[in-house]
Amino acid sequence: MRCSVQSLTEFVSSVFERIGVPESEAEIIADVLVAADARGIPSHGVARLKRYIDGIRNGVMVPDSKPRIVHETTVSARIDGRDGLGQPVSFKAMKLAIEKAKANGIGMVTVFNSNHFGIAGYYAMMALEHGLIGFATTNTYPLVLPTFGRKAVLGTNPIALAVPTGTGRPFVLDMATSVVTRGKLEVYARKDKPIPPQWAADEDGNPCTEPSHILENFKKRAYGGLLPLGGGDELTGGHKGYGLAMIVEILSATLSGASISAKSYPSGRGSGIGHFFAAIDPELFLPREQFLKNMDELIETVKNSPRAHGKNRIYIHGEKEFEAMERSLREGIELDSKTSDMLKSIGEELGITCECD
Amino acid sequence: MRCSVQSLTEFVSSVFERIGVPESEAEIIADVLVAADARGIPSHGVARLKRYIDGIRNGVMVPDSKPRIVHETTVSARIDGRDGLGQPVSFKAMKLAIEKAKANGIGMVTVFNSNHFGIAGYYAMMALEHGLIGFATTNTYPLVLPTFGRKAVLGTNPIALAVPTGTGRPFVLDMATSVVTRGKLEVYARKDKPIPPQWAADEDGNPCTEPSHILENFKKRAYGGLLPLGGGDELTGGHKGYGLAMIVEILSATLSGASISAKSYPSGRGSGIGHFFAAIDPELFLPREQFLKNMDELIETVKNSPRAHGKNRIYIHGEKEFEAMERSLREGIELDSKTSDMLKSIGEELGITCECD
Repeated sequence: MRCSVQSLTEFVSSVFERIGVPESEAEIIADVLVAADARGIPSHGVARLKRYIDGIRNGVMVPDSKPRIVHETTVSARIDGRDGLGQPVSFKAMKLAIEKAKANGIGMVTVFNSNHFGIAGYYAMMALEHGLIGFATTNTYPLVLPTFGRKAVLGTNPIALAVPTGTGRPFVLDMATSVVTRGKLEVYARKDKPIPPQWAADEDGNPCTEPSHILENFKKRAYGGLLPLGGGDELTGGHKGYGLAMIVEILSATLSGASISAKSYPSGRGSGIGHFFAAIDPELFLPREQFLKNMDELIETVKNSPRAHGKNRIYIHGEKEFEAMERSLREGIELDSKTSDMLKSIGEELGITCECD
Repeated sequence: MRCSVQSLTEFVSSVFERIGVPESEAEIIADVLVAADARGIPSHGVARLKRYIDGIRNGVMVPDSKPRIVHETTVSARIDGRDGLGQPVSFKAMKLAIEKAKANGIGMVTVFNSNHFGIAGYYAMMALEHGLIGFATTNTYPLVLPTFGRKAVLGTNPIALAVPTGTGRPFVLDMATSVVTRGKLEVYARKDKPIPPQWAADEDGNPCTEPSHILENFKKRAYGGLLPLGGGDELTGGHKGYGLAMIVEILSATLSGASISAKSYPSGRGSGIGHFFAAIDPELFLPREQFLKNMDELIETVKNSPRAHGKNRIYIHGEKEFEAMERSLREGIELDSKTSDMLKSIGEELGITCECD
């Protein structure tokens, strides 16, 4: 099924409204989810719609929760998400960080008692239209092993940084601190393809190339899990990826008072996870024009540097996603049959017609 | 040769004084260099002494440069290092970040026109005694390839984060964003051992397991270089390590007005590189006691989680270095024969006796 960005957003927004989410918040959630599909990251897009609906129906997520600022300074705030959906509180938190950065050069906002917020890059990119640098992290359910461990006690813990440029597209890095996320294992499992040994480890902590075995372990809540960036070995820098995951736990959970990934509780009320958002004005350091010129120089130097044998392009972070977004706006978003079927069945159940059909 | 931490520091400090560095700054440089050896990172320690001396004598580094604050706000500053050594200006910059964090919750200071500053972790850790979170990054000479590139346009660009805890040792991550640094290749080359294919690529951008070949290319200024964390391939997340290196370029160079790594100039006046320092007060978000308790919970949960088959310990970042430091203070620092010989010859030339002999 192919769907225009607008139709899909309207459909998803209606779904959330129908199950108790206030209109303005339903629109934010829909925008964040569809942005993932449009930017070529379907693992974080509308394919998750059923999980959100189930989460609300099971009482894990409160559809009309009102987040509350529990502490605030001129440059910071801490927000209680009160077990609501991750997107609206994150949108609010990033907006607050941006306001503070506009007034005082920097704003940092942490959120606790929250839930899955979609793609981290969405929030980091909110800073761009204000000429600010945006930063976002979140912890997640425990899926990732520390180096030399065999129990997943860390999240896939993404880091996103968005930086304005003078000409051309902004720099937008949005990366899990594990080599891959669970979605990638699911893709390989469906194709019955072995995964590289750097991606995941079995219940003994040994590298495992069978994706279905890892996924089965997740389901059974057995040991084993994804490996941090760098793989399972110090020789290839696995301890560095593990360190990055720890940074994200510290920013998102220990600084917010959220549950650390190891203790997040997907089946209770709320997952308890947390987020960290920041916006920084480059003019804290140098004149805007000079900063933008410096960014352009960096990007052009790297992008136009000599390419490896057989490679025809060096990508700057965010380029692939901006190109996917342009394609999606022009041609619509192609949804796989499993996702299409799910959307249809949700639409039928709730009496909402998707213009995509 | 085995040397007490104190004797070695005094010797190194005297050397810098003798070649024109003011006493208080010579002490800082010596402290940073010897800290690397004492913490088990000899690649960044006194083994580099000759390079610093040559740098000063060749006019690359100005021994008595007076750094100047060129822009300042309540939460930020930008400092012109004026081609001095990296350590004194970095010490000053981090102290300023700490002062600002104590007054306003956060302080961020960038430095340009600087030089190699030693281990990033040294500066991040300065925040700990004030109960603050410390952060430091630097760009470096170009040694690292972007994904799909074959020319080193990025530095090894380390990231360091130091975070206080309630009980036990602080969390201290100090990592190059490449899989390894050049020093690691030198160790393998000396032993005539092949390196893993994730570490480096040849002049065509293909993985190369021969360390001497890569080092030879560096010397000839030919293409090829170190690979970013995750290796040379998107399949294993190399684009993520490349993205982290870009973050460091942005913080250290584009926000400071320093040369990007690709354009740093090791043979002219100053290398032109830059640094970024930050200190953050956890009380911007929550009460100190709660934050420290959260940190302890995170660290204990990860550290005591089930270990992989055949592994007897899960390390928290910084633990190995704190243990090395304790050993060094107790037993002294063992220097390899090449480094001992260099120190002796420097001592003889400058008429300084090292108490280590």
